Amino acid sequence: METKTYLNEQKERVEEALSRYMLKVGGEFADHIDTLRYSLFAGGKRIRPILCLAGARLISGTADNDEAVLPIACALECLHTYSLIHDDLPAMDDDALRRGKPTNHVVYGEAAAILAGDALQCFAFDLLSNSDHIRIPPQAMLEIISVVSRAAGPLGMVGGQYLDVVHEGREISYDLLRTIHRSKTGKLITASVLAGGIAGGADQRQKKNLTEFGNAIGLAFQIVDDILNVESTTEALGKAAGSDSARGKATYPAFFGLEQSKKMAADAVDSAVRSLNGFGDDAAPLRALAQYILTRTK
Amino acid sequence: METKTYLNEQKERVEEALSRYMLKVGGEFADHIDTLRYSLFAGGKRIRPILCLAGARLISGTADNDEAVLPIACALECLHTYSLIHDDLPAMDDDALRRGKPTNHVVYGEAAAILAGDALQCFAFDLLSNSDHIRIPPQAMLEIISVVSRAAGPLGMVGGQYLDVVHEGREISYDLLRTIHRSKTGKLITASVLAGGIAGGADQRQKKNLTEFGNAIGLAFQIVDDILNVESTTEALGKAAGSDSARGKATYPAFFGLEQSKKMAADAVDSAVRSLNGFGDDAAPLRALAQYILTRTK
Repeated sequence: METKTYLNEQKERVEEALSRYMLKVGGEFADHIDTLRYSLFAGGKRIRPILCLAGARLISGTADNDEAVLPIACALECLHTYSLIHDDLPAMDDDALRRGKPTNHVVYGEAAAILAGDALQCFAFDLLSNSDHIRIPPQAMLEIISVVSRAAGPLGMVGGQYLDVVHEGREISYDLLRTIHRSKTGKLITASVLAGGIAGGADQRQKKNLTEFGNAIGLAFQIVDDILNVESTTEALGKAAGSDSARGKATYPAFFGLEQSKKMAADAVDSAVRSLNGFGDDAAPLRALAQYILTRTK
Repeated sequence: METKTYLNEQKERVEEALSRYMLKVGGEFADHIDTLRYSLFAGGKRIRPILCLAGARLISGTADNDEAVLPIACALECLHTYSLIHDDLPAMDDDALRRGKPTNHVVYGEAAAILAGDALQCFAFDLLSNSDHIRIPPQAMLEIISVVSRAAGPLGMVGGQYLDVVHEGREISYDLLRTIHRSKTGKLITASVLAGGIAGGADQRQKKNLTEFGNAIGLAFQIVDDILNVESTTEALGKAAGSDSARGKATYPAFFGLEQSKKMAADAVDSAVRSLNGFGDDAAPLRALAQYILTRTK
């Protein structure tokens, strides 16, 4: 399997599905929906939905299930996109560029951007409970909603962003850095692959393996993010390069230097791959995703 | 049944449950959780959770079910509170006072207030899917999550707030005013009583009756809100009185005058009460709630 081809195919599937599920309304609500679509279709990598699909495929062993998993995959992308819109707000990171385009609030204003994020978060749970799309047993869907809402909530993504914001420009311990990264980024990545696994019918041991895999690639993902913020350019990233250092943010390179950080990211990916040892060849897509996370350039 | 006693008892139950479910964490996340608790325990009327409990009790005919319905009731209050925190933000209504206390962003700053709202929205769906609390059949819980997420989402509460914000100070039609009210306020009120009904095992006809009831009291609620904004004082309301007129907001009194608006609110409550005709004496709490919505003073 060629990783690049696989990722592109999956990305197209996710975007086709997002487009299909996304509300199509005329009348009064059309402008509001446009503000959601603007950020949702601004060209993300779609890593979380792809992880979800790969987790489901690994456990169920069939592609027949993919159509049933796509709403879950899309819900994860809605949650991720909402978090980006809110992170970019003037009151938070105040970023003008995201995925190479003006951020939501730059285009639509602050109030509309706050509401676009609010709406996308809510729409994610609409997707996760929509009986028109969902073909997974109700008990498994409730478990997925629980896993996802905890990963995105006050002790997960939102809590991590809170810690990130309040500690900006202040010296923090490595322990706190890890907590911020794990909660802000790692938990939703873990939830993505785990939600897929639950949709595929994972047993307890499989859930444990997928959780370990998700935690390890989540760590690698964030370290690589920190490294790219130092080494890449704004043009390549599609968002402001060098911004962490300018803001005095604690990062892996700031703690350990670039070379050691790269080694830590590679170690995390090795550990992720090891956690899939029990799965054999079926885990090739997840292994490829782990390698991609290490070698990505944006 | 004395309405005031009933409402107070139910309010206490809801607040006791909210306190029980609300995350109790020390360590890094404690400060963030405090920002949620601040607004959640700032003394609301708890109308949505009380409607939910009353809807469930009406359908199931027993109080035995109450403990199972409380997490749903509390989730509705979390959603309502998140919407208040975001509505009050400087980029939206820029209100400094809510429920008689400084608004969330006045106390914790804008970034923390945005995140407190984000976290409360997410926590609502955690509550709705948490197997520690939930005792309702999974299929009914998924239906409740679907009803609630649609009521709160881009074509519901958030969409209504978007329309409210973008039309502030502009002349709008009565049709648009109704759309704004119904989506911003009405849909979550309807979802509250309907979610309770579904939890109680409502059939299609009962769901239809509860939806009609919810729509009618939702309308009455908003008309009375508009009237109180004109007739009451900031002290009595616990939030800024006279603010609608100062901002050039379209309201029922602005369209129809105070007397006609009062008549319209009373008519809506009559219509709500009529939609419960099939239920007999068991519907007394919902009828009392409808009357309370008409005669409330804050």
